[in-house]
Amino acid sequence: MVTTRLDLARIRAARRDIDPVFLDTPLYRCDALGRELGCTVSIKLETANPVRSFKARGTELVAGLLTGQGRTAAVCASAGNLGLALAWSGRRRGLDVTVVASRRAPAAKLDRIRALGAELELVDGDFEMARERAVSIAQQRGVRLVEDSLDIETCEGAATIGLELADGASSFDAVLIALGGGAMATGVGHVLKTLSPDVEVICVQPLGAPAMTRSWQQRRVVSTDSTDTIADGVAGRYPIPAVLDDLLTVADDAVLVREASIVTGMRMLLERAGLVVEPSAALGVAAVLEDRDRFAGRHVATVVCGSNVDVDAYRRWVRM
Amino acid sequence: MVTTRLDLARIRAARRDIDPVFLDTPLYRCDALGRELGCTVSIKLETANPVRSFKARGTELVAGLLTGQGRTAAVCASAGNLGLALAWSGRRRGLDVTVVASRRAPAAKLDRIRALGAELELVDGDFEMARERAVSIAQQRGVRLVEDSLDIETCEGAATIGLELADGASSFDAVLIALGGGAMATGVGHVLKTLSPDVEVICVQPLGAPAMTRSWQQRRVVSTDSTDTIADGVAGRYPIPAVLDDLLTVADDAVLVREASIVTGMRMLLERAGLVVEPSAALGVAAVLEDRDRFAGRHVATVVCGSNVDVDAYRRWVRM
Repeated sequence: MVTTRLDLARIRAARRDIDPVFLDTPLYRCDALGRELGCTVSIKLETANPVRSFKARGTELVAGLLTGQGRTAAVCASAGNLGLALAWSGRRRGLDVTVVASRRAPAAKLDRIRALGAELELVDGDFEMARERAVSIAQQRGVRLVEDSLDIETCEGAATIGLELADGASSFDAVLIALGGGAMATGVGHVLKTLSPDVEVICVQPLGAPAMTRSWQQRRVVSTDSTDTIADGVAGRYPIPAVLDDLLTVADDAVLVREASIVTGMRMLLERAGLVVEPSAALGVAAVLEDRDRFAGRHVATVVCGSNVDVDAYRRWVRM
Repeated sequence: MVTTRLDLARIRAARRDIDPVFLDTPLYRCDALGRELGCTVSIKLETANPVRSFKARGTELVAGLLTGQGRTAAVCASAGNLGLALAWSGRRRGLDVTVVASRRAPAAKLDRIRALGAELELVDGDFEMARERAVSIAQQRGVRLVEDSLDIETCEGAATIGLELADGASSFDAVLIALGGGAMATGVGHVLKTLSPDVEVICVQPLGAPAMTRSWQQRRVVSTDSTDTIADGVAGRYPIPAVLDDLLTVADDAVLVREASIVTGMRMLLERAGLVVEPSAALGVAAVLEDRDRFAGRHVATVVCGSNVDVDAYRRWVRM
């Protein structure tokens, strides 16, 4: 019995409240990438949808819940993808959405949030500064604050990826999951550890933003003073205690990867799989690159979790 | 009643014989691309699977049929994607596959065919030369020749895309389909004209390889002496009469687009949708670019049918 804040029956029920455009995403073997990495690689592709990341699985639940409660507005802090997804889910339901983000977030993410009609407030600082500002907006306006990874719906939405992986999981040896706040890792991890306990759940974070991984390793919340990574989607500094508790229950390992490996991973995903991905989505490939022996001959699945990149930065990274 | 060589009940039944990894592919609105094109654009994405094109929908049926008949080998001519798909479907079923292709076909396609264990024979010449050579191999060896667009299974496989489009078709005004041999256009067209007759079925071919479009326009087979296009996947010269008959029944229009529009389409799909595509998969966007007034404010779906490109060529194209 896997005991976390999540519940398998609720996760299964959640599928009904998520727009089908975000569900049952492609899951397929990519032989060209596998040959390059020396293992069998399956890709779970979360980018072929209107918001180009997995985050709408969670915001569909959050937005549905809020409108069901008669609420008309919500605010969230976001590195970009959560805000984009909440803007999409909110627009569909007539919910006024305010997103607080760092001025340094990718312009592609910020532009798409604006295009969906959400109010966008930018802060000079990182994601944690945006989080503080979102808290005070919620208090001032009396609107609901949506907190990624803490709000259980964000984890349950991500957990539906786990259901889809578990359907085919008999053949996987390991699943590689980008680790930021922990919604995806705890959600997917809970489902896999419940339904396919032999599948290794491995979380991957950049060395330049290691707070949650350090916390998992030391079994207590470890925060950092700053982050330094191109993987903007996972660059938090203050792990949430309740999420760490869940992560300690479901993750078999948490590893840190170098920036150079993330860039090589992005380039490989382009050249071998024909996929444009944002840095966070290349963390799984980066983890294999840094420890080829560990994965040699095994079958790994990696969740390609987002593709919202600034084209110029992307071209620089992959030298296109 | 739409009367072609295809039959809706057979197409529906065909879904059972196709590996699910090729079915129920993403279909979603891409607002960023739509804003750029001045219309609502939905993408039907056929690249997130082990062969990176829609062709395996058909080869799954062909290979299943052949092994059901006790056959152990098959040969096909291919611009690349059919051979790659037949190699995949054949390997799974213990069928020896020989692919004949042009030496000028993209190396990415040829390499992936070889990697799947198929025998690859290259000819000095274009796809039509490969077709001749495949015919003689089939005769010499007494093995079954698989002919794209002529073999009804190749059309029925492609037609399953039509079923998935028709599920959501109430909102489409037009569907844009790359036109080569005609399997996809007649297959998807048959389903749409049967289930959603108000949806405009528009076929798109390069000006540099216009044989089937000219044939459709003149209502008789028109062949050409040569082709000159980067869209290698649709560059045939000799339309098949039976396929043309079906196309005349189901296509509302067939248009030709310039190479520059194909390249711009590829670049837009990269920059606005985050999708790497081969030239044939950008034909739909190219058609909108060349006739913006026709599509202004309407909702078009475009089938992104393949992503097997040589990376170097792709980099050259999208940088322009």
